[in-house]
Amino acid sequence: MPLPQPVCYYHTPRAPNPRRTQIFIDEKGIEIPRVEVNLMEGAHKQADYLNKVGISQVPALELSDGTVLVESPAICRYLEALHPEPNMLGHDALEQSYVEMWQRRIELRLMVTIAQVFRHTNPRMAALETQCPDWGAVNAGRIDERLAELDRQLQGRDWIAADRLTIADITGVVAVDFLHLIKREIPEGMTALIAWHDRMRARPSTALQ
Amino acid sequence: MPLPQPVCYYHTPRAPNPRRTQIFIDEKGIEIPRVEVNLMEGAHKQADYLNKVGISQVPALELSDGTVLVESPAICRYLEALHPEPNMLGHDALEQSYVEMWQRRIELRLMVTIAQVFRHTNPRMAALETQCPDWGAVNAGRIDERLAELDRQLQGRDWIAADRLTIADITGVVAVDFLHLIKREIPEGMTALIAWHDRMRARPSTALQ
Repeated sequence: MPLPQPVCYYHTPRAPNPRRTQIFIDEKGIEIPRVEVNLMEGAHKQADYLNKVGISQVPALELSDGTVLVESPAICRYLEALHPEPNMLGHDALEQSYVEMWQRRIELRLMVTIAQVFRHTNPRMAALETQCPDWGAVNAGRIDERLAELDRQLQGRDWIAADRLTIADITGVVAVDFLHLIKREIPEGMTALIAWHDRMRARPSTALQ
Repeated sequence: MPLPQPVCYYHTPRAPNPRRTQIFIDEKGIEIPRVEVNLMEGAHKQADYLNKVGISQVPALELSDGTVLVESPAICRYLEALHPEPNMLGHDALEQSYVEMWQRRIELRLMVTIAQVFRHTNPRMAALETQCPDWGAVNAGRIDERLAELDRQLQGRDWIAADRLTIADITGVVAVDFLHLIKREIPEGMTALIAWHDRMRARPSTALQ
């Protein structure tokens, strides 16, 4: 049975999770009709969105059989099956697990940490979040050690988890660019991380919208 | 080229992340030599562990080629490739992505939320965590709505994401059992969730160690 095809991609430009799926889509060269969801206006919490998607999250990918996939890595996995090249989730089982490990490590240890600082200390987020400034401060104190983990992995490597671009690099560039929103940057001494970030930002897919 | 084989599984009995990988291993019927890592004594932060695993996390799976996989879903994906039956990550691409979506949803929306309550409000955790009681309270207030998401999904279904046990059910039972540590339980009215949890706890793999 042929796999259902994507019919609509619900996204929010500039938000980190939609951005990483968008970079994945652009690196694959896939065209999918898009609908923009305005988070600041609460469009993701309105009945028509919730009835279709089942949860107030972006991005979401609606398929021709009515299934709606949520969660960026799950969406990317489905798109990789439909469009295997260029491979960005790993060729064999070992590479796939190694890529998934690094994707999760960067997401859960770095990107989420930066997001907590943004959500709990930025006045613009007070409308969307019960802010706990202490929690924001704890996370702010963890960022450099998490960046250092990535810098160490990149010593002598062009890419984070394979011999080419993978979803781990995509989550990585989105996480590092997120530093800008909390007025931080990569510490000067992390030269491998800085060089990798420059290479990533030279790719058209990572242009900020 | 044959895939490298598991040579050692580093785990901590009762901790949620090792428990979900352990249930996966037991449901597969796989035998792997195990080494116990005592988190309360800080064994995961000592040089010999860090040199081998690269990060202070459990569980970890050491392979015969020297690779060490960390992150429970990445470990489970590798074991699924080595031991395809019973299938617990999905047969075709659509099922795989749907299972991954639910695994992530339960992990990131429910299990992490309960973990934040435990870490930020339990006196035993003060030695391991800079505690922010306000953050613990915010998370405590989110738990019932997250349990309700799972209860709704289980209406008229035996399993969370497929017609059989998957990794989503495993993360689910570990998350729900985690409620006990914060002295909470499934609210009475969530009958589908309660019935599913009873079925899950009847499986030998979920016996508490």
